[in-house]
Amino acid sequence: MQAPTERMPFRETVEVSGHVIDSLILPKILDAITSRAGSFIIQEFTVGQNRTDPSYVLLEVLAETPEKLADILEQISDHGAVPISAQDCNLEVADLAGCFPEGFYSTTHHHCEVRLDGHWFEVDRPEMDCGIKVDPGEKTAICIPMVEVKPGDQIIVGHAGVRVFPEARDQKRRLFEFMGSEVSTEKPKGVAFREVAMEMLRAKEAGKEVLLVGGPAIVHTGSGDHLNSLIRGGYIHRLFAGNALATHDIEQALFGTSLGVNLNEGISTEGGHEHHLRAINRIRRVGGIKQAVEEGLLTQGIMYECVINNVPYLLAGSIRDDGPLPEVITDTLEAQKQMREQVQNVGFALMIATTLHSIAVGNLLPGTTKVVCVDINPSTVIKLSDRGSIQTVGLVTDVEPFLRSLVQELKQLTS
Amino acid sequence: MQAPTERMPFRETVEVSGHVIDSLILPKILDAITSRAGSFIIQEFTVGQNRTDPSYVLLEVLAETPEKLADILEQISDHGAVPISAQDCNLEVADLAGCFPEGFYSTTHHHCEVRLDGHWFEVDRPEMDCGIKVDPGEKTAICIPMVEVKPGDQIIVGHAGVRVFPEARDQKRRLFEFMGSEVSTEKPKGVAFREVAMEMLRAKEAGKEVLLVGGPAIVHTGSGDHLNSLIRGGYIHRLFAGNALATHDIEQALFGTSLGVNLNEGISTEGGHEHHLRAINRIRRVGGIKQAVEEGLLTQGIMYECVINNVPYLLAGSIRDDGPLPEVITDTLEAQKQMREQVQNVGFALMIATTLHSIAVGNLLPGTTKVVCVDINPSTVIKLSDRGSIQTVGLVTDVEPFLRSLVQELKQLTS
Amino acid sequence: MQAPTERMPFRETVEVSGHVIDSLILPKILDAITSRAGSFIIQEFTVGQNRTDPSYVLLEVLAETPEKLADILEQISDHGAVPISAQDCNLEVADLAGCFPEGFYSTTHHHCEVRLDGHWFEVDRPEMDCGIKVDPGEKTAICIPMVEVKPGDQIIVGHAGVRVFPEARDQKRRLFEFMGSEVSTEKPKGVAFREVAMEMLRAKEAGKEVLLVGGPAIVHTGSGDHLNSLIRGGYIHRLFAGNALATHDIEQALFGTSLGVNLNEGISTEGGHEHHLRAINRIRRVGGIKQAVEEGLLTQGIMYECVINNVPYLLAGSIRDDGPLPEVITDTLEAQKQMREQVQNVGFALMIATTLHSIAVGNLLPGTTKVVCVDINPSTVIKLSDRGSIQTVGLVTDVEPFLRSLVQELKQLTS
Amino acid sequence: MQAPTERMPFRETVEVSGHVIDSLILPKILDAITSRAGSFIIQEFTVGQNRTDPSYVLLEVLAETPEKLADILEQISDHGAVPISAQDCNLEVADLAGCFPEGFYSTTHHHCEVRLDGHWFEVDRPEMDCGIKVDPGEKTAICIPMVEVKPGDQIIVGHAGVRVFPEARDQKRRLFEFMGSEVSTEKPKGVAFREVAMEMLRAKEAGKEVLLVGGPAIVHTGSGDHLNSLIRGGYIHRLFAGNALATHDIEQALFGTSLGVNLNEGISTEGGHEHHLRAINRIRRVGGIKQAVEEGLLTQGIMYECVINNVPYLLAGSIRDDGPLPEVITDTLEAQKQMREQVQNVGFALMIATTLHSIAVGNLLPGTTKVVCVDINPSTVIKLSDRGSIQTVGLVTDVEPFLRSLVQELKQLTS
Repeated sequence: MQAPTERMPFRETVEVSGHVIDSLILPKILDAITSRAGSFIIQEFTVGQNRTDPSYVLLEVLAETPEKLADILEQISDHGAVPISAQDCNLEVADLAGCFPEGFYSTTHHHCEVRLDGHWFEVDRPEMDCGIKVDPGEKTAICIPMVEVKPGDQIIVGHAGVRVFPEARDQKRRLFEFMGSEVSTEKPKGVAFREVAMEMLRAKEAGKEVLLVGGPAIVHTGSGDHLNSLIRGGYIHRLFAGNALATHDIEQALFGTSLGVNLNEGISTEGGHEHHLRAINRIRRVGGIKQAVEEGLLTQGIMYECVINNVPYLLAGSIRDDGPLPEVITDTLEAQKQMREQVQNVGFALMIATTLHSIAVGNLLPGTTKVVCVDINPSTVIKLSDRGSIQTVGLVTDVEPFLRSLVQELKQLTS
Repeated sequence: MQAPTERMPFRETVEVSGHVIDSLILPKILDAITSRAGSFIIQEFTVGQNRTDPSYVLLEVLAETPEKLADILEQISDHGAVPISAQDCNLEVADLAGCFPEGFYSTTHHHCEVRLDGHWFEVDRPEMDCGIKVDPGEKTAICIPMVEVKPGDQIIVGHAGVRVFPEARDQKRRLFEFMGSEVSTEKPKGVAFREVAMEMLRAKEAGKEVLLVGGPAIVHTGSGDHLNSLIRGGYIHRLFAGNALATHDIEQALFGTSLGVNLNEGISTEGGHEHHLRAINRIRRVGGIKQAVEEGLLTQGIMYECVINNVPYLLAGSIRDDGPLPEVITDTLEAQKQMREQVQNVGFALMIATTLHSIAVGNLLPGTTKVVCVDINPSTVIKLSDRGSIQTVGLVTDVEPFLRSLVQELKQLTS
Repeated sequence: MQAPTERMPFRETVEVSGHVIDSLILPKILDAITSRAGSFIIQEFTVGQNRTDPSYVLLEVLAETPEKLADILEQISDHGAVPISAQDCNLEVADLAGCFPEGFYSTTHHHCEVRLDGHWFEVDRPEMDCGIKVDPGEKTAICIPMVEVKPGDQIIVGHAGVRVFPEARDQKRRLFEFMGSEVSTEKPKGVAFREVAMEMLRAKEAGKEVLLVGGPAIVHTGSGDHLNSLIRGGYIHRLFAGNALATHDIEQALFGTSLGVNLNEGISTEGGHEHHLRAINRIRRVGGIKQAVEEGLLTQGIMYECVINNVPYLLAGSIRDDGPLPEVITDTLEAQKQMREQVQNVGFALMIATTLHSIAVGNLLPGTTKVVCVDINPSTVIKLSDRGSIQTVGLVTDVEPFLRSLVQELKQLTS
Repeated sequence: MQAPTERMPFRETVEVSGHVIDSLILPKILDAITSRAGSFIIQEFTVGQNRTDPSYVLLEVLAETPEKLADILEQISDHGAVPISAQDCNLEVADLAGCFPEGFYSTTHHHCEVRLDGHWFEVDRPEMDCGIKVDPGEKTAICIPMVEVKPGDQIIVGHAGVRVFPEARDQKRRLFEFMGSEVSTEKPKGVAFREVAMEMLRAKEAGKEVLLVGGPAIVHTGSGDHLNSLIRGGYIHRLFAGNALATHDIEQALFGTSLGVNLNEGISTEGGHEHHLRAINRIRRVGGIKQAVEEGLLTQGIMYECVINNVPYLLAGSIRDDGPLPEVITDTLEAQKQMREQVQNVGFALMIATTLHSIAVGNLLPGTTKVVCVDINPSTVIKLSDRGSIQTVGLVTDVEPFLRSLVQELKQLTS
């Protein structure tokens, strides 16, 4: 049998640096090469002396045909392996509104750079499942979703001239590690809760926002007061939710029930199933939540606290909404667009008890934004962690005692 | 202590008939009375001799004040207990677009009648969480959602002159009973699968449509072919889904993967995470799914089968959508409106692996439409069955083998 | 068609009293009759005026043959319907050790009485899935499990002369109602936690014991200190667990880890998977947990607190045990026997994060003992609530924050 | 700052070969070194050219003190890294029955070798959480559980002279990979079912046994007939279960119900809750299951098929057992011992719907035995896969349609 070097005359030398062993990047690169019938020669391999030192690998990639070589290079570029003889990125002009050119470069949510005139430039607004629009004159590049493509936009095609930088595991991450390694309910929870509290404080100190993405179970489980306390304490800087959270919060404020269940006694109120609809109707009659607060109709609850404490909220619509409340953005593309704008300064996202909104927001966030997803249902947490960022951890726990504990931890940490 | 009859001078005689013991209606009525500090005297009680015979109860309700009496009568009217000295319904003219008058009658999804000029008329399009718009001249009444209220509409307020008829358990229901009684995974599944098949055949024979409401797990689990076989066999007459099911189905048709996982080998394809985005882009470039079928771009899969077999599909948008595909209705209110129109002839709804769409569609269906909700996650099934109709049963099972078995059962039943 | 009274000449008049509507007893009785092709005539029906008043029903049961009549009477006797012309119970002498006579009366866990010489006597130690041994001379009756039958024992056969009294829902129960109605995670949790705390105090005040049945997740989740605090506070009077809870608790005391995970930092300790085995080995080397405390080897943790605070513990063996610890009762029948003895004065059982032990202990408890089963996994809670006692409620929540909150609630209630 | 080589004068050169990158062994080794304040110098690193080629790493380990060096060497020996200047293993004589000497070597379930007189010998019966007993004269070594230690046994202490060989991922494993990577319900199931069928055939062809470990849900879900068909087809060679599976199977054979639910109609039989107890009693009266088959009392079902087809079964007791059946081994240590004997020729273990038995048996199996754990509850599957062998995969699916599909796949593969 021929040696690989004879059978595979097409070659390219690539380099990759970073936490290539620790974070499984090297195995994935080697796997991508060999599973495409390519081969490799490791020419240089410097292993970092500890967890935080980067490693460096210089690697010759071999393939039988130029096409196979190109295919391999494309795949491994997603893991940060770029030819040392790098090319500029290739641009193609968009011909149709709302469509990329065929062969467009499809983004990850990692930090990313593109090569223009021999120099590397950072891509603005990293977001997964987008394309990259380049202004070659201004030397700027930005991720844009398909729907925002305008004819004439210059869009990157192919993988040449694009390199990504998957996040390194840092020391702080270590504390989160036990939660992210796999979805398990049997982990020390006190540690986890404290760590969430610390991340919130770190984000605040760094001048970043803490975003809360929440579902109606926050209200159903009687956790509203804990969240109110976080808002009043200045720990939550932005709220994304749907019609349901706001509706049941207002139902609770107006009727003392959530989905008809009395939150102080835990007993279903006969006729209480109508309360949420009456709550929506009243808010619609006065024109909106802010107006209801101003008119003195709404005097407590999460939405009230947001209004009073100037915490911006965004309510995104879904097909299961009753009403909805006037503030709800019923067009999903418009809601996505506004959420995209509003996450730009988010440093930490706490997602609680909502699969839909958690995944929707998770899709918009760059890989560098830390995310904790809290749900009592492991499947929600599994779905979000499929996203694959080491910055995202799932926490399988119960909303009410979690928020109760979070309030206490923050009190202790800041006293 | 005074006898109730002395302390409670305000009285009304009500009657209720139907499966008042079997279906727990009587306990609920008595509970509603006593929990509101009222009392009752049972004046007549005829118990049906077997499960299918209705019972009849004539009941005097007592309360301390006229207000308390009115409150009790409102609550028990939801269970079908109406004063024998019935009144006409009270109407109020809507003053604001998109808002009911305060005190509007909030609907259930049960069969419902309203009293106009001393006669009872059926309410059209029973749907929960709506109001009732009446045309007193035409003697018609119809459920409408809040958002469709126009100034000048005559809306029912209060409970007077409205009576509902909760569904009776019928014999067929008995077969489903074991599934609905509680959410359990440890039930004989073969029986359940056969029963679902029989319901589909019954709906078809009755000239009603079978509606499939499905999530993308149908594609991820490699169940697409089973569903295709059901569509080709004429067992599915309408499809409601979101962008995800259609996208991954088309991804599978174009690339052989779903979320990048090769469905024949079960292995992740390197770079496969881009496939769904490229699939959407291609469909957007040709203008839509139908065009893709016509142009020969799309030659297999669920959406292809729907197009070829003239099965109408409705794709409702959500904030987590990539793209989306051109057919997706991105405005959630518009999607609701179109779904509401399209369910009018549905006799059986099979909901598979989608919490959002199942609940959204469940909210629109009358209580008489049979629904089976299939999910491997008990929490989805619990959420839907909270809806409270005995026509809705949950089936905790795995999508792929469920659909595989369903195809086989239908083959056996029809051969 | 003939009237039932003509087709069915065999009749018996039975009576039933209690919460026959509210607790679904009457529907079940009528269902049992008609599903066995019998019929009934309601001769008298007095409905209680409120939730706590009992109702009374006098009922004539009709059947086509004496055998069918006997079959019906047997079934409805389980719901407390007994012939007004009651017979004494029938006794048969056991012929084989460890076996009941064929046709033995199989017990429920409800309060139960047997008729001897025309008088009703209470059956001691009500327990489900047992038989009833009678001493006709002493006029005593006691539930015994199959394995304890000795040749010569007089065992009740058939349903004649036995009547049961399913528990009535009481007012206190109302507070628990929202939890027990169905398994849902979306219920107000603060109310539930407070109610658990109150049940513990009520049991204590009533001179009854609080039994904790716990699994190792108590230790894994870092909840040990909360439980220690409950033990020291005198709120836990007895502990049932398995080898795993005790082992990981001792691992934590000796090595600071649980299953190798450091409980203060939440990080896996390299080599930590050996800790639990080394912990067991050390305890075995000194002869047991008590000896380890006496010798100063074990100085903290749940087992330490039990020893120091004289809280009796019973460790029941299972086939997945490593070691096991010397105190573990490896014979499952012996463990059952000792548990049966030890639950006799238990007023409240709190079961946390263990399916096996919860169900095992649940099987031994009379229907009058209140049970709360806490688990983050709904399926555990569903399995236990299948037991069917209204005294058993499931609470789907997370162990650590649950116990943390319970400690706080008890502190507030008793301060 | 000093260079590591100066601060850390204590050194040892170790080597490790195998799939050190692919299977994460190298990162774990490097992590173990640096997290213990050690350092390393990679002296040689040969990376395999593809997935099946082994790599080789020669590594100098540095530490500040001899103790720290010893600690590091111990930890990394678990990952197969052994000093090139290897020592013999250290033996210590057991002083107490049922106890290892302090400092005993705690086993993994991987293939393992020990060094005696300068030569490496394989350790018999690899099993996790055991110790190693050595006969220095015979040059044999065997894993034994703590409970079987006899005074005078020579037991290995420390890590010196012991090396383990974690399983390599092989090509066949690739097909299973998608299931094992993480617990997800959204994977192509048809592929998975076919692969399970193929593993059963491979084991059979290799002269190995297929072991079925099953819980009662097999009967409850109406899957008994599918399993019977597998037994009759010769695909199951051994059955491990508990009292519950056998009891409900026999209940089904004698009464047509499982836990009182009629398996053909799916409806609860009134009084059916007694059936399982009557079934146990009848079997006890005739002395056992085999006798019941011989006497013609038991004529169908899983246990019947086992008896008729000479498939050995082992029923292990638990504290939740009713009865139990005469064959049940009530002592858990005795049950473990017999299971340990009986798994020696098992090539493939299929574990269905039983957490307790799956984990118990999983603990006894060597890392080379392939295991598939099937459960509808992800938490069971997560618990088993925590075991960490790449030979164990979890499959979240529904028992009945899984077994139904498995029967079909086997039929197709063998026809």
